[in-house]
Amino acid sequence: MSDQPRVEIYTKDNCPYCDKAKNLFDSKGVEYEEYNVTGDDERFEEMVERADGRKTAPEVFIDDELIGGWDDTCELEERGELDEKLGITDGDDDAIEHRKLIIAGTGIAGLTAAIYAGRANNEPLVIEGDEPGGQLTLTTDVANYPGFPEGISGPDLVNNMKEQARQFGAELENGIVESVDDTCRPFRVELTNGDVYTADAVIAASGASARTLGVPGEDELMGYGLSTCATCDGAFFRDEDMLVVGGGDAAMEEATFLTKFADTVYIAHRREEFRAEDYWVDRVQEKVEDGEIEIMKNTELIEIHGSQEAGVDHVTLVENEQGHPTDRLDDPETNEFEFDVGAVFYAIGHTPNTDYLEGTGVETDAEGYLHTQGGDGGGQTETDVPGIFGAGDVVDYHYQQAVTAAGMGSKAALDADEYLEDLERASSSGEAEPAAADD
Amino acid sequence: MSDQPRVEIYTKDNCPYCDKAKNLFDSKGVEYEEYNVTGDDERFEEMVERADGRKTAPEVFIDDELIGGWDDTCELEERGELDEKLGITDGDDDAIEHRKLIIAGTGIAGLTAAIYAGRANNEPLVIEGDEPGGQLTLTTDVANYPGFPEGISGPDLVNNMKEQARQFGAELENGIVESVDDTCRPFRVELTNGDVYTADAVIAASGASARTLGVPGEDELMGYGLSTCATCDGAFFRDEDMLVVGGGDAAMEEATFLTKFADTVYIAHRREEFRAEDYWVDRVQEKVEDGEIEIMKNTELIEIHGSQEAGVDHVTLVENEQGHPTDRLDDPETNEFEFDVGAVFYAIGHTPNTDYLEGTGVETDAEGYLHTQGGDGGGQTETDVPGIFGAGDVVDYHYQQAVTAAGMGSKAALDADEYLEDLERASSSGEAEPAAADD
Repeated sequence: MSDQPRVEIYTKDNCPYCDKAKNLFDSKGVEYEEYNVTGDDERFEEMVERADGRKTAPEVFIDDELIGGWDDTCELEERGELDEKLGITDGDDDAIEHRKLIIAGTGIAGLTAAIYAGRANNEPLVIEGDEPGGQLTLTTDVANYPGFPEGISGPDLVNNMKEQARQFGAELENGIVESVDDTCRPFRVELTNGDVYTADAVIAASGASARTLGVPGEDELMGYGLSTCATCDGAFFRDEDMLVVGGGDAAMEEATFLTKFADTVYIAHRREEFRAEDYWVDRVQEKVEDGEIEIMKNTELIEIHGSQEAGVDHVTLVENEQGHPTDRLDDPETNEFEFDVGAVFYAIGHTPNTDYLEGTGVETDAEGYLHTQGGDGGGQTETDVPGIFGAGDVVDYHYQQAVTAAGMGSKAALDADEYLEDLERASSSGEAEPAAADD
Repeated sequence: MSDQPRVEIYTKDNCPYCDKAKNLFDSKGVEYEEYNVTGDDERFEEMVERADGRKTAPEVFIDDELIGGWDDTCELEERGELDEKLGITDGDDDAIEHRKLIIAGTGIAGLTAAIYAGRANNEPLVIEGDEPGGQLTLTTDVANYPGFPEGISGPDLVNNMKEQARQFGAELENGIVESVDDTCRPFRVELTNGDVYTADAVIAASGASARTLGVPGEDELMGYGLSTCATCDGAFFRDEDMLVVGGGDAAMEEATFLTKFADTVYIAHRREEFRAEDYWVDRVQEKVEDGEIEIMKNTELIEIHGSQEAGVDHVTLVENEQGHPTDRLDDPETNEFEFDVGAVFYAIGHTPNTDYLEGTGVETDAEGYLHTQGGDGGGQTETDVPGIFGAGDVVDYHYQQAVTAAGMGSKAALDADEYLEDLERASSSGEAEPAAADD
C-alpha cells in the first residue's frame, strides 16, 4: 500500500475511544502517526487548533483533512467512505473479512441458527468457542430430543447438525470470540487468536459453563479427581466412592451414570427437595433402593482434600440449618463431618458465557444471562442492541433443554434475517440504519 | 347406584350455569329432578324460600340440603366432597376418567409436550384432533428440522415422535376436543364423540388450519380441484395448469413441488414482495427461469369457476391498485381477467384452532391466537387461565417452524409439570388452589 495517505491520530491516556480508533486502523493494516497529548501542552494546543477548537480525543486526520472523533470516523466507516479515503479497495489482502452474520457458539442453539441462517442465504460464520458442540457433547444419551425414539448420543446429534448447517452454506471455524464492538457498524468481532471480522449481525449462542463452588481445594484438584463432567471423567475413577454435588436434572443424570463405575455414588444437595424432573428422581430412587446411590440432603461441600499426585482423598461436608443431625457428624457444634470419596463431580448449574459482550449495549441480568425482548410475537431473540441476537443457554436459565435451545436458535436466525433484510433495504434506499428490527 | 341421594336442581331458561350444573351431574351418571322456574311463580317462590332468600339460579339440593349455586357446587366438587355427598366412590364404573394432563393435538408441539410430560410422570392423554400429526404430515421433506442432515419426511418425523411419546407413557387417543370448562377444577374436557374427562391441567397444542378466501366457487369446489394441500392433492391434476395463491414459505414450497406434476404453475400473490425465506424464493426463481413457474404479483383471486363433476375450469383474477396493468387484463376498467387453470391451491396462512377454548378465561388476539405470558424467564407458555398452557401454531403466528413448535411443546410440558407439582403440594397441605403457577 505504497500510496497510502498520511493518517494522524491525536490520543490521550485512558481513552477507550482512542483505542477503538487505533484498533480500526490497525485492523485495516493502515499505518498512522499517534500524538499523545497527555501532559504535552504544545501538542494539545496543536490538536485543538487543527480540530477547529474541539478539545476532545481522539482526533483523526487523513492527509491533513480533519475526520474528527471516533463517532465521525465510525460514521465514515459505516458509509464505506473511510476505505475510499484510505485508498483501500475490496481486493486488498489485508482488508478485514466482512460477514453478514457471525454466530458465536456451536452448541444446539448456534448450530440450529446456522442451519436457518444458511437457508436464508446469510452465509453465517460460526465460531466454535471453547467448548465446540456445547454442553450436549458431554451427554451420552439424549432421550428427550424429539424425533429420535431410540435416543441419540449428544455428539451424534451435534455432528448431524454440523453437517446439516454446512450443507446450507454455514462455515464453521475454530476460535473463541474475545470481544464484540458495537460502537460502530458493522460490528467488529475479535477472536482470542487475533483474527478480526466485521459483521452486520451477531447471534450470541455461546452457552453457559459449569459453575464451581469456590471452596478450598477446588482450584488445585480440578482435573485431578474433581470434575464438572461425569460422562467425561467418570470412568477414570472405577470402583471408588464418588460424590455428586447438586440437585437438578444434571446431578441426577450424572449420579445415575456414575453407578456404572463407582463403588457407591453419594449425592450431596444443599436443600431438602431435588429440583430435578420426576423421571430422574425416580431413576435415582431405584439406584438408592439397589444400594448404589446414597442421598445426603441439606448437606454442603466446604472443602476438598487431596493432592494432584494422589487425587481426591476426602471432603469436608456440613449439614446446614435445614438438616436433621445424622450420626455422620464428627462435630455436633459445627455440623461438619469428614467423608472419604475418591472423586467429586460438580453438577450445580452454569454461568452464561457473556464476557465478550461486556462494554456493548447488550444488557444482562445479575447472573449474566442476556436480556431478550420476549413476547409471543415478533423478535423474541433481540437483545438491547439491534443486530445482536441471543439464543440458547446464554439467555435461558429456566428450561435449558436441547429442543428449547434449538427452537431459540431457529428464532434468532429468523430474527437476524429480518434485521439483515431491513438493513439491506435501508442501505439501498440510502438510509444509515434499518428503521426497526421488529415488526 | 341404588342408594343415590335425591338431587334437585332449580333452573331457568338461558342460564349457562344451570347447564353447567346439569352437565356435571349428567357426567357423573347422577339422576336429578329439574324444576324450571321460568314463568312459574310458584316454583320461583319455592326456590327462593328453600335457598334462604337467594334469587338466582341454579340452586342445587342434595337430600334436601341446600348446596347452592354453580360456584358452591363447583367448590364442593373441587374439594372432592360432592362425590362423597352423592355416595360415589372412586371405583364406580360410570365415574368420569380423571387425568393429570390432557394435551389437545398431536402435531410437533403436542407430541413434544407428550414426550416431556411422559418423562415427568404426568401420564398425558393426547387427543389427536381432526388432523392427527398436524400440518407437518402434509410436508414431504423437512430439511430444516435440526438433527437430520439428509432431511426427513414429515410423516416419519411425526411417527418417530409418537413412538417416543408412547415410550415415556403418553396415551394417544383419536378424538377432537369439543370444549374445556374452566369454571370448576379439575377442568372438564369434552370430546365431540361425547367422551368426557376431567384434567388437572390442559396443554392446547391444537395448531392452526388452512385459511380460505371466501370467494364464490370456493365452497362448491373445495376438494374438487381446489385444495389447501399441494403435497396431498397435487398428483391428481397431472399436466394441468395450476394456480397457487399466496406469498409465504408454504406458497413457494407448494409451487416448487407442483412443478413435478403441472404443465405450468402460476403463483398469484396480492403484494409486490414475497414474505417467503430467500431459500424458497430462490428455488421458485430457478423454476421461473426454467419456464415451469410464472409469477403474478399484486394479483388477487376473486372467483373460481367449475363444477364438482368437471373440476376447476378457470378463475377470475384482479390486478389490485399496486399492480402495473399487464396485457392479461380483459377489462381495463376493473383490472379483472379470466384465467384457465385446472387446479387451485391455497397457501394463504392459517387460523388457530381455538374454538374449544371459547367461554374459558383463555384470552386470544383478534385472530384467535392464544395469549401466553412470554418473557425470557419462567412460564412462557401459561395462558390467562392457570393450568391451561399453549404451544405451537395455536400461539405462534410469527415463527411457525417445526423446531420452534417442538421447543414450545417442551416448555409447555415443563410449565405444566411445575403447575401440577404446586397443585399436589397445595392439595397435600390442604390449600384449595396452588399459590402460583409461575416462579
